[in-house]
Amino acid sequence: MSTYSIPSSPIAVNLPDADAISEFDALFRATSAIGVTSAGGLHRLAASEEDGRVRDLLRDWLVRHGFHVQVDRVGNLFGLVTFDPSAPYVLCGSHLDSQPSAGRFDGVYGVLAGAVAIAGIARRLRERGVRPPCNLAVVDWTNEEGARFQPSLTGSSVFTGALSVDDALACTDAQGITLCQALERIGYLGEEMLDIPVAAYVETHVEQGERLEREQISIGVVRETWAALKLRVRFDGEQSHTGPTPMDQRRDALRAAARAISAVYSEVGKHGDQMHGSVGRLDVYPNSPNVVPSKATLYVEFRSLSTDRLEDVGKRFAQILDDIAAQTGTHVEVESRQLRAPVALDSRLAQCAHDVCRSLGLRSVDSVTVAGHDAISLSRTVPSCLLFIPSHRGIAHNEAEFTEEADLHNGLRALSALLETLCVTTQNSR
Amino acid sequence: MSTYSIPSSPIAVNLPDADAISEFDALFRATSAIGVTSAGGLHRLAASEEDGRVRDLLRDWLVRHGFHVQVDRVGNLFGLVTFDPSAPYVLCGSHLDSQPSAGRFDGVYGVLAGAVAIAGIARRLRERGVRPPCNLAVVDWTNEEGARFQPSLTGSSVFTGALSVDDALACTDAQGITLCQALERIGYLGEEMLDIPVAAYVETHVEQGERLEREQISIGVVRETWAALKLRVRFDGEQSHTGPTPMDQRRDALRAAARAISAVYSEVGKHGDQMHGSVGRLDVYPNSPNVVPSKATLYVEFRSLSTDRLEDVGKRFAQILDDIAAQTGTHVEVESRQLRAPVALDSRLAQCAHDVCRSLGLRSVDSVTVAGHDAISLSRTVPSCLLFIPSHRGIAHNEAEFTEEADLHNGLRALSALLETLCVTTQNSR
Repeated sequence: MSTYSIPSSPIAVNLPDADAISEFDALFRATSAIGVTSAGGLHRLAASEEDGRVRDLLRDWLVRHGFHVQVDRVGNLFGLVTFDPSAPYVLCGSHLDSQPSAGRFDGVYGVLAGAVAIAGIARRLRERGVRPPCNLAVVDWTNEEGARFQPSLTGSSVFTGALSVDDALACTDAQGITLCQALERIGYLGEEMLDIPVAAYVETHVEQGERLEREQISIGVVRETWAALKLRVRFDGEQSHTGPTPMDQRRDALRAAARAISAVYSEVGKHGDQMHGSVGRLDVYPNSPNVVPSKATLYVEFRSLSTDRLEDVGKRFAQILDDIAAQTGTHVEVESRQLRAPVALDSRLAQCAHDVCRSLGLRSVDSVTVAGHDAISLSRTVPSCLLFIPSHRGIAHNEAEFTEEADLHNGLRALSALLETLCVTTQNSR
Repeated sequence: MSTYSIPSSPIAVNLPDADAISEFDALFRATSAIGVTSAGGLHRLAASEEDGRVRDLLRDWLVRHGFHVQVDRVGNLFGLVTFDPSAPYVLCGSHLDSQPSAGRFDGVYGVLAGAVAIAGIARRLRERGVRPPCNLAVVDWTNEEGARFQPSLTGSSVFTGALSVDDALACTDAQGITLCQALERIGYLGEEMLDIPVAAYVETHVEQGERLEREQISIGVVRETWAALKLRVRFDGEQSHTGPTPMDQRRDALRAAARAISAVYSEVGKHGDQMHGSVGRLDVYPNSPNVVPSKATLYVEFRSLSTDRLEDVGKRFAQILDDIAAQTGTHVEVESRQLRAPVALDSRLAQCAHDVCRSLGLRSVDSVTVAGHDAISLSRTVPSCLLFIPSHRGIAHNEAEFTEEADLHNGLRALSALLETLCVTTQNSR
């Protein structure tokens, strides 16, 4: 992680010019139209036909702007600007996939701002005949959202080696289509992983919280994340007829699941604002009005800054699940259990980001992220930086998600200046 | 309803011969293979490709055995044996569709036993040169189960006029495919409703209870049904991110639904064995692990012999739903509410069925049905009779559903004798 010497202060950078800002606006408008919902949101699930079309649009844009485009085995779409084939890359990006009926900003902003920023930096450097010590690249990570395929953060996790290519490609959606098949259908199943040295990773993202807006701050520099305990829990009961079957003979998986959902909220409620929790997905089988359900699968999550707190809740919740199973005559199985430890992001990059903001006259603060992001994935193997821009009322995963144009542009300026600083001044200290 | 004089005692009937019994066994084996599950059950949803294939098989069998086949606008498949075009019909039947991963006997038994019985009766009458006062017909009613399309009992409800053709055809499955489209795809969307006078309707069905098996009785003659209160309830919340959204700002439709499910069981529990209740289906949107659900739709039912009891529970449950909505910041709407009153089946037919059983040396008792059946639908406009045969342990809507061959054959004998009695002795009393 520390083979590169990351600068601690910004160089005098050239901000994106008016053309670059218009370029960003046009690109954002164009991508927003792909998968647009009637309420003006976005419904663009990973590796769907819409995801294919927005990828095509990005790919064509990158090619037109001199990037070399490469797609890896899990569909991560890279746009590379290589000044020196032996030099490391400063990589930036995010994701173009969305949740169902979600907003226009989550993920897509980071990819488009990165593409536009790099195109501008590369043009300026080439005009000035500068060959910087680092190359630049932007990436659209596959299936960050984890809406269609689980787990989330698929592409970035494979890139860091946390998830194997085979496991990722074997993930299935609710219709049983594998990620491999879905990527092949849209033409984004690449042949090999990209093996490039990465000096630093930078991601810009909407905050999904209301602090920046409330305090009128342009940039949040994320320092740490909450931990998360994610469980997939399955109750098995027995199919029977909802009419004649005596109540005391029923083994109703949905009845058990309902109790488990209430138990999640009751556990979370004990921790005030120190814990969040939810059940976002529940699959019921056979899910027919006249049949007592034989199977119910819950996707449970608990989130907290404190891993200890999550461990405690995890133990207690396991006991609660056993009790519910015993009371309802069902069998319970925790199909998967993932404890995502909290991550501290690279402090040199964070400091550099603050310095860049100051030099641009943009107010910045340290932030914490509760949600997972590709930058958190990357940070496990690459020095990483996550920058937040304001979100109106913190509305996220909702069609009403909104960020002011001025905030989008400020984020683009900060990203552009940070990327140029890193590209021009990062030294290989090997 | 009382235009026909139904006989109160059986004529000396000719039982189905050994050939007819083998014919039934062969037909049952053949249909059981269409939609068979790995556990030996049946998965044959209404108007699915499998339903199309089993209908083809029945249609071909009927044509080979001299029936005139007609399909009405909602896919009800009739096999008619007409001795006198001006005479009314004695109709029998049930349904070929199944619940998901269900058993081999529910519904299909009544259709096949009816077809084999009528073929035998018609052959004998024609051999003897008898022209009886009634014609005979067998029917496969569309979508009795209500698994793929709601409401259940679709075909029989349209036949009686309780449901309009247009409403039935507009029903959609979970993929948004209408019943009209599904029937068209399998070639069972007929052009007109069948307008035939029906003197009586007879259905044989597995008991889905354990009494007949326990008491070693061959035939249950259903006298009455439980009432049912069926509700479709939708909670509307607000999509948000399961990570950063503060817990007190969440409006979680699934959290509300979980409470409502627990409330159903708690209400039912107050009534001992006088009430059954369930939530068999729950649809969650967007049902993505990282999104607080904005919509949850529950299919709730309460069943009891007493309509008053259901009315009381219905009122209290409406209040509970409002309370849950208020507590969870959601909005609740009862999208549909159907109170199915209890039905007393035709007593003359029931008496005739008992007499027929006695003359055959088969033990019979009066039964009550908790579940709905096409015969209950029909009974609102046509004198109807519902005969139960034993179900092993009462297992229903489950792949393990089982009825002994001897019981299937006894049911066929009783049905055949009852149909012949009705066909030969029912007088038009207009």
